[in-house]
Parts: sequence; structure tokens; C-alpha cells
Amino acid sequence: MTDSEPNENDLTALVHDAKQVVTVEDDGSLGIYEDAAIAVVDGDVARIGATGPVTREFPPENATHVVDASGKAVIPGFVDPHTHALFAGDRSDEFEAKLQGKTYGEILSDGGGILRTVRAVRKASDEELLSNLLSHLDTMLAHGTTTVEVKSGYGLDTETELRMLDVIARADDHHAVDVVPTFMGAHAIPEGRDADDYVDEVVEKQIPAVVEQGVAEFCDVFCEEGVFTVPQSRRVLKTGEEQGLTPKVHAEELAHIGGSQLAANLGATSADHLLYATDDDIAALTDAGVVPVLLPGTAFGLGAEFADARAFLDAGAPVAIATDFNPNCHSQSMGFASSLACVEMGMTPAEALVAGTKHAAMALDIGDGTGTLQPGTPADIAVIDAPSYVHVPYNFGVNTVETVLKNGEVVHHE
Amino acid sequence: MTDSEPNENDLTALVHDAKQVVTVEDDGSLGIYEDAAIAVVDGDVARIGATGPVTREFPPENATHVVDASGKAVIPGFVDPHTHALFAGDRSDEFEAKLQGKTYGEILSDGGGILRTVRAVRKASDEELLSNLLSHLDTMLAHGTTTVEVKSGYGLDTETELRMLDVIARADDHHAVDVVPTFMGAHAIPEGRDADDYVDEVVEKQIPAVVEQGVAEFCDVFCEEGVFTVPQSRRVLKTGEEQGLTPKVHAEELAHIGGSQLAANLGATSADHLLYATDDDIAALTDAGVVPVLLPGTAFGLGAEFADARAFLDAGAPVAIATDFNPNCHSQSMGFASSLACVEMGMTPAEALVAGTKHAAMALDIGDGTGTLQPGTPADIAVIDAPSYVHVPYNFGVNTVETVLKNGEVVHHE
Ligand SMILES: [Zn+2]
Ligand SMILES: [Zn+2]
Repeated sequence: MTDSEPNENDLTALVHDAKQVVTVEDDGSLGIYEDAAIAVVDGDVARIGATGPVTREFPPENATHVVDASGKAVIPGFVDPHTHALFAGDRSDEFEAKLQGKTYGEILSDGGGILRTVRAVRKASDEELLSNLLSHLDTMLAHGTTTVEVKSGYGLDTETELRMLDVIARADDHHAVDVVPTFMGAHAIPEGRDADDYVDEVVEKQIPAVVEQGVAEFCDVFCEEGVFTVPQSRRVLKTGEEQGLTPKVHAEELAHIGGSQLAANLGATSADHLLYATDDDIAALTDAGVVPVLLPGTAFGLGAEFADARAFLDAGAPVAIATDFNPNCHSQSMGFASSLACVEMGMTPAEALVAGTKHAAMALDIGDGTGTLQPGTPADIAVIDAPSYVHVPYNFGVNTVETVLKNGEVVHHE
Repeated sequence: MTDSEPNENDLTALVHDAKQVVTVEDDGSLGIYEDAAIAVVDGDVARIGATGPVTREFPPENATHVVDASGKAVIPGFVDPHTHALFAGDRSDEFEAKLQGKTYGEILSDGGGILRTVRAVRKASDEELLSNLLSHLDTMLAHGTTTVEVKSGYGLDTETELRMLDVIARADDHHAVDVVPTFMGAHAIPEGRDADDYVDEVVEKQIPAVVEQGVAEFCDVFCEEGVFTVPQSRRVLKTGEEQGLTPKVHAEELAHIGGSQLAANLGATSADHLLYATDDDIAALTDAGVVPVLLPGTAFGLGAEFADARAFLDAGAPVAIATDFNPNCHSQSMGFASSLACVEMGMTPAEALVAGTKHAAMALDIGDGTGTLQPGTPADIAVIDAPSYVHVPYNFGVNTVETVLKNGEVVHHE
């Protein structure tokens, strides 16, 4: 990222006197430095250690950004590896209707559900879409997220899918949060279309156009009962992969149909949801190095059983968590996802933190150490208004993040 | 509250151009005014209606506080009718230990649990206690709470119980949030004490001293298996009532032992928790006009079943919700309590809003219309950064409150 040797003259930031600085080590355990400082040179972590020695080597007066973290915990900025954060319209009325007793079928026949969002996105202007996404990125940043994956998939036609990816790229340019773009033309079957016929379109028209556009890094598919079958999903992901898009899979969310084995078989970067994954699925995913991305907010919103995080952890899998932010799971907060990971999935606060940082970065194939705060890696940092990282999940439904640095620059402060 | 006749010259505030203003009607339904304004005279709601007519009658240039609520929903400030928000120490490590596999028994034998908080509170200075409470009131206010009940009960001796109530009174004086003080000497059995012997102390020493101090309005007791029996609880509450403290009961949280019938029998203002309340309990409480205060955050944190809100609603009870904020349920957010009320207890967003405003005020015997926004009642107002009140529970784990007015004065703005 830099072509000069780090020295104190390039000091981007000094975060000092933290009650604790938490890093993620290579083995996935936490490194905890008490009464510590972080020096950031040229946007990367240069030194972490006791405040005294670090500030002698990197005097605060040389730093562009100085953060007094007295009494506070400092953690890696969150990586949110699964969102549908770009959308238009308001579906809170469906949340209400469901609680008033309407069935999902009734909501669908009233014109609700995902296809309602598709209609709203097709109608929205680029500027409206961009403004929506930037506003959600602001909320995410305020909750400590410094990198987020955003999927297309509310266009379901070539033109709108390209528009969504273009907006995602522009948001990435305009916002401090890093945005990782995923193409998900195979998110749903468009109104009045046959699934096979639509898969033809995705494969023959959308993927080549998306590849030519050059924004998307990943190709994702909703492999689910009543949506795309395993063979259809395989065809989409294979085609994407052949043209340079790395596969991801929405697998076993509402039923077990084989998305995990598909992900393992293709060597997908991640398989996501996994509520109905079996022991065989867990073994196959783990052997294939596929990151399991668990979405506890979605299960919470559905009133469903949660994914079996412990089974994945016991198998040695690098469990990641994400918000799955979308109109049906309206939460931009990785802190809330962490609370659910602990309270509902039995993960420890340490496991939840690693799941929302290092493992989440692995789920996005980010290889520069993002999410670890190891020396030499990007200084994406969240300062917590509490003395330990445990307070992130412990403070239910309350944002504990006070200050956020992206590449060593203060980009949010309460 | 005012000795002059309301007229536009005393205009405290004008909140205008709201997408919707939500009031709570006498029958517990919501009143929804679209494209509306609220005029506040001398701290009370003077007029609600379409922005045009209201601003012609009450011109913004005469108002001390002007809030442009374009595109936003305006709701009554939340009333949080059950908290233990005054404490010292940090028990996040117990949250972690439990998730690492420690049993509650092991945590207790390691010196954890409520008696650890008691030791920390006894050791803390008045200033430290006040500072802790004020900081939590800040967080509550930022989440839209304008009135909160705070209990003593981490002293368990006359001196510390009085100190806690004194701090609660000082916090009420120093902070925009209204604080309602409850004496809860019978919160736990102190270390090494016999329950009957301790109840003697509560009844003979603590209650008279608390009454003489003149801060507490309510007397509460933890009527629970292994804590205080029904006869012990009755003795505490009866004694308190005879000396002017209104009874409240922690009932049927961990087991069914008869706290509900006790509350009904005494005509307590509220019975709280009620996870194990039976149909007979529900009928008795409802007949006796006891407000059921449900605490979904506590059930969430315990991984317990939630109280049967629908059974109470079907019985016609004025169901209230509260955060139960305490070291074991670390959430100051009524918005989060609302999400849980909807998602986990099947309440509608409208029922959750009434439960956290008008019914919550009833649980605190507040008779001036707080929590309703009816004309003539206190202008305690939360402006939501979303177009409808439904977004409060719909936005999981994310605070939707942007601006808060207390008695018509802007006391918080994001
Ligand atoms: Zn998804
Ligand atoms: Zn309580």
C-alpha cells in the first residue's frame, strides 16, 4: 500500500492509553494488550504495545489523528461479509402485517416480499439508490463496520443489475467504508418467468455484461427450495467462475437441498446461512476451506432456529458472522449480530469478535490482514466506549462504538 | 405545571412537517396524524394537527425550540418502568464466563452474581454512583427514554439503600430524564443472613428510614423461589404500603410461587417479569388493575421462554414493557425491548409502542398523560429517523431515535 519505508514522519494516527487493544492472531485467538497504544504509519498498523514505549517512538505531535482511548477497548473494525444493503422502498409494513397475523403467502399475494423490492429498485433513480446506500453505510460505520460486502440482486434484469453494481462501485468511491461488490442476478425468479429460462438469461446475458462492466468480485446464488435448484445454482456459479467471478452460495437457509455440498464442490469462498446444514455438510465445507457465514439476525427475524455455530467451530471451521442487512432483516449492526451470536448461538465473545473481523475478511477473500490489527495490516479500528471487547455483545441492542478509524484516519466520532 | 393560560407567546416548541405524529388514545389505540406538527406551550402539548394550520396558529418564530421533522415519525418519549440502572462494577466477565461454559452455580461460588454488585455499590462513593447513573441516563435519553424508574436494592443495608435513593433523587434533579425512585431493600438476601431475619431488618429499619428520607415512591420485592417467599414479600409490601410506599412485585420470573396473586391481592401498581404466570394469575392481575410489566430483554439474556404477552393482551390487560436494565441484562434501549416484544412475544408494533409509553406510565402511577402526547399532557417527544413508528422495532439493534424533547425542550439531538 506504501512505497516508502514506515517511519515516524509518516505517522497517520496514534491511538493511546487504551484500556485494552485487541488483535486477532494467526491461529484465530485474540491478542490482548493492556494500557496500550497503536501507531499507524501510512494507513497501516506500525506498532502496538504499552502506551509509554509506543508514544516515545511515535510522538503524538507527529500524528495527523490522535485518539485518547483512556478506559476504552480498541478492536479491529468489523467486516460485514453478507448484506443486501442496496435497495429502495420500505417494507416495514410487511414486518407489521406479519405480526398482525398475515401469513407469508398473504403478504406475497398482496404484492409483498422480495419482488416488491425489485419493483422499487427498477423504478428508483441511480441517485436515489446511491443516496440510500450511502446512508446505510453511514449507519454501519457508526456501528464500527469498516468493510462491507453488498450484493446486487434486486434488479433481476441486465440493465438494473449493472446499475446496482455501478452504484455499489460509486458508494465505495464516495464512502470511507470499503465496499466489496457481489453480483447476485440469481437472487430470485422474476415475476412471470420460468426458472430455467431466467437462469439462461443470467448465464448468457447478465454474467458476460457484469464481467465486462468489471465491478463485481463475487457471484452469489440463492440455492433454495422453490428458488434455484442445485443444478441451476451450479450452472450460474460455474459460468461466473469461468469468467472471473468467485463463487459464494446462499445455502440451506429454509430447507436442506444441497447448497453446502455445491459450495464445497466448487471451492466457493463462502457458504452462507446454513441453518439446515448437516454434519456431512459441515465436514465437506471445512475440508474444502469454504468459510461458513452465519446470519443470526435473519434467524432472529424469521423466528427460526439458529445455525449450529458450535458444530462448525468444533469442526475447526473459520466461522464468520454477518448482518444480512436487507428489507427483511433490517439491522446494520455487527454489534447486534455479535449479541445474537453469543446469546442465541452460544459463541463466546472472543469467537464472535473473530467471526466479525478476521473470519469475515476471509469470507471476502481479503488477504491483506484486514480484521486482525496485526502490524503491517490496514489500521481499520473501532474504539469501544467500554473497558473490554466483551461489552460489544454484552450491551444488547445498544451501539458501543465511539470512534472509528479507516486506514488510520478518524472517519467517525460520536 | 403552569399558572398562566397557554397562548402562542409561551410557545416552548414547534415540531413541524412530521411524516407522522403518533399519539396514544384513551382506549389504548394509536392516533396517527400525517404531515403533522405539534405545538408545545409551557412544556405541554397544546395542539397537534396538519402542519399548515398548526404553524399559522403557532408561528415557529415564536418558539424557543423548532424541530423540522420532515420525513420522520414523531412518537411519545419512552417510559421505562423497570430498571436497576444504579450500580457499580462490571459483570461483563460473567456474561463471558457463562458463554465459556460456566454454570450459574460456579459463577456464584466464584463470587459473582448480584451480591458482587452489592459489594461494589457499598464500596463506591456517592459521586461514582451518581456519575454511573447519569451516564446510563444519557444512553437512555439517546434511545428516546424520557421517564425511567430506577430501583435501589444493591445496598441491602439501611445506609447503602438510603445512599442509593439519595443518588437517584440527585440524578433526577441533574438530568433531563425524569427518574421515578423505587425502594427495593428486599432484592436479595445479603451474604450470610437468614431471610426472615433480613426481612425483619427491611421492615423494622429500612422501610421507616426510607419513608423518613422521603425519596422513594414505590416499594418492590423479589418474590421468587430461593429469594423471598410470598409471606415474606407480603410482609415487606404491607409494611411499605402502611407507611406510604406503593407496592410493586417481581413475580414468577424463574418459577411460579404466587407473586402474581400477591400483587393482585395487594392491588400493587405492577407485577413484573411474569414468565410463569398462569391463566388464573392473568385474570387476577387484570381484575385487580395491576399493570403487567414484561421484560423481554431479561428472557433474551437468560435464554428463557418469553412471557405470554398475547394472553395478557387477550385478557384486556394494559401490557407494559421495560428494559430491566441491570448488570445481568445490559440494555438501556426501549427500542430493543420493542423489537423483542414484536419478534419474540408476537406483539404488534402498535402494541409495543403503547406498552413502552402509556402503559409504562400506568405502571408508574403517572396520571398526567405522560406517554400519550394528548393535548394538555407533557411534551415528552422522540423524533424517529424513519417515516413510521414501525421502524422502531423493525430496525433490530439499531437506535432509530434522532431528537428528543422533554417538556418541549430539545434535550438530545444526534
Ligand atoms: Zn443474503
Ligand atoms: Zn428487576
